[in-house]
Amino acid sequence: MELALRLGARGWGKTSPNPMVGAVVVKDGKIVGMGYHEGVGLPHAEVMALTKAGENAKGAVLYVSLEPCCHYGRTPPCTDEIIRSGIKRVVIPLLDPNPLVSGGGVRRLREAGIEVTIGVCKEKARKANEIFFKWIRTNLPFVILKVATSIDGRIAGPYGRRIHFTCEKADREVHRLRAGVDAILIGRNTLVRDDPLLTVRFVKGKNPERIIISKSGRIPRSARIFSEGPLPVIVATNNANVSAEDVEIWHFKGNEIKGVDLLKRAGSAGISSILIEGGTRTISWALREKIVDKIMIFISPIFVGKGKLLAEAIEAFELHNVEIKRIGSNVLISGYTPWGQIYDG
Amino acid sequence: MELALRLGARGWGKTSPNPMVGAVVVKDGKIVGMGYHEGVGLPHAEVMALTKAGENAKGAVLYVSLEPCCHYGRTPPCTDEIIRSGIKRVVIPLLDPNPLVSGGGVRRLREAGIEVTIGVCKEKARKANEIFFKWIRTNLPFVILKVATSIDGRIAGPYGRRIHFTCEKADREVHRLRAGVDAILIGRNTLVRDDPLLTVRFVKGKNPERIIISKSGRIPRSARIFSEGPLPVIVATNNANVSAEDVEIWHFKGNEIKGVDLLKRAGSAGISSILIEGGTRTISWALREKIVDKIMIFISPIFVGKGKLLAEAIEAFELHNVEIKRIGSNVLISGYTPWGQIYDG
Repeated sequence: MELALRLGARGWGKTSPNPMVGAVVVKDGKIVGMGYHEGVGLPHAEVMALTKAGENAKGAVLYVSLEPCCHYGRTPPCTDEIIRSGIKRVVIPLLDPNPLVSGGGVRRLREAGIEVTIGVCKEKARKANEIFFKWIRTNLPFVILKVATSIDGRIAGPYGRRIHFTCEKADREVHRLRAGVDAILIGRNTLVRDDPLLTVRFVKGKNPERIIISKSGRIPRSARIFSEGPLPVIVATNNANVSAEDVEIWHFKGNEIKGVDLLKRAGSAGISSILIEGGTRTISWALREKIVDKIMIFISPIFVGKGKLLAEAIEAFELHNVEIKRIGSNVLISGYTPWGQIYDG
Repeated sequence: MELALRLGARGWGKTSPNPMVGAVVVKDGKIVGMGYHEGVGLPHAEVMALTKAGENAKGAVLYVSLEPCCHYGRTPPCTDEIIRSGIKRVVIPLLDPNPLVSGGGVRRLREAGIEVTIGVCKEKARKANEIFFKWIRTNLPFVILKVATSIDGRIAGPYGRRIHFTCEKADREVHRLRAGVDAILIGRNTLVRDDPLLTVRFVKGKNPERIIISKSGRIPRSARIFSEGPLPVIVATNNANVSAEDVEIWHFKGNEIKGVDLLKRAGSAGISSILIEGGTRTISWALREKIVDKIMIFISPIFVGKGKLLAEAIEAFELHNVEIKRIGSNVLISGYTPWGQIYDG
């Protein structure tokens, strides 16, 4: 199953809005077929692994990192293919939350006399597809807040002066993250002060959409986001009187942008995941609006002593399912907010 | 050598101002003697291990976590004992920085025809005795800043309201730390707001001296520090007109207390290590005054969102020799300041 998950992970950034799935066929203790879902519209992992296994699939065990589908989507149901192949036993970590599948795939296999084991590597499989799991159930994007801080909780120097906290290894990790999400969101302040590109450069991968929050709708036309990466740039604003060719306006009524409204708008645009990379104001807004599902904080062993804080004037809360990793000279602390959408099969 | 270091570590909190030392005698791949320095005035680790080894010491290898002494202190020189025992080879991580020994122990052994290997487990041995190493060379205490913070760099809630960030495991680690230092230092604000005991309760060990910084010298007589732990409480102040039976006044001229003056005063009182457990003001002061050698930060996966910051208005700096450990639900990041006193043999 570990291998199936590793195979599935190769689909990172390529399968959205589909889940990432890997599959391994094992016969007499030997691997006779492997596969993973390489992208939307392409064959599912199970079918790839079974095709490779061929005749060897008879009486073999299939490990697949998500419940096999039993419906006609862009491809025919995998369950039929599994039954046809002569597989004896199927091992999965958890059920597919997609209402068109959930439990149906397992039922179909069992009815065909195939033994099914559920629950192996469940937590890893949940994390691997957490974006898909929220998206398929709510039609809202899964929101990750990523931030790099000093050891004293600062994200920038005085007057917002940019400080590069992350080491090269952590930078690559951030770009890997970018390649796996549909959109990045920042506030107007960060755009003006840091003039970031928000593209994927340190790893191979696709560039996400860029969403800028600006109540006033004023965006500097000289910003570098207009010279590289996908256009139009999306501007979430309360001002309906903004327009430009390379800018797409998401207009929200009133004087404030409600978090849930932004998520709904993004969801209806087919955005299944948002990475927030903003500054103090945007981070505090997103936390206050309770739209963040997962938080990833890169802490650098630097004292800054004066400057912009990570968050201000928010209610206290505790992260759960916390994971701690050393990445180069940084520590990455990740965890889920109390209101974060977690699917546990 | 790993074993010698582990044996030495049993002396934690007992050997001050002596170093912690462990020793192991190995003959034909078997351990024939072990020992550690159990406290000031008691036999050194080498002598204990050799005594246990007895006749078996002949032709054996002695692993000892610091260069053996060659001078008459509270006990006779260990080098003589080693030569007498018939040991063939001595392995040490680094030289003793004590000017009465440094290199002399090794020279004496080599002159007697004993092979000496230096440099094994050097970094671990340096850390094990970092307090002693600074003290013996400077007569100033080694200063550790310990602080518990939220993930957004807060050490308390609004108006200094106390928040308990550390889990039980981290609390035990802090008390273990307290048991190993000669003194704890806080500011008057922390005393008034938190009314801490600053004693060792969650582990076995001795209580350190308590030093309160108070420019005005005003200390609430109802504070709990007067009901438990060592007396007199030391008050570092600019006000000479304070006195009480259970208070010892360290008076400093002028309107401010200079960090280096405080260290000198503590050093002359025989204090070889200070643990700072103060609040924002004391921490910022200690960092500005550059008296901190080592920083230990327990980070809890909590967002506080508003409240007291770890440090304010200090110059930026980077920690080095950083170590990251998970302790229960906390992450412990420790490292050394750029001006910290590190001895590397």
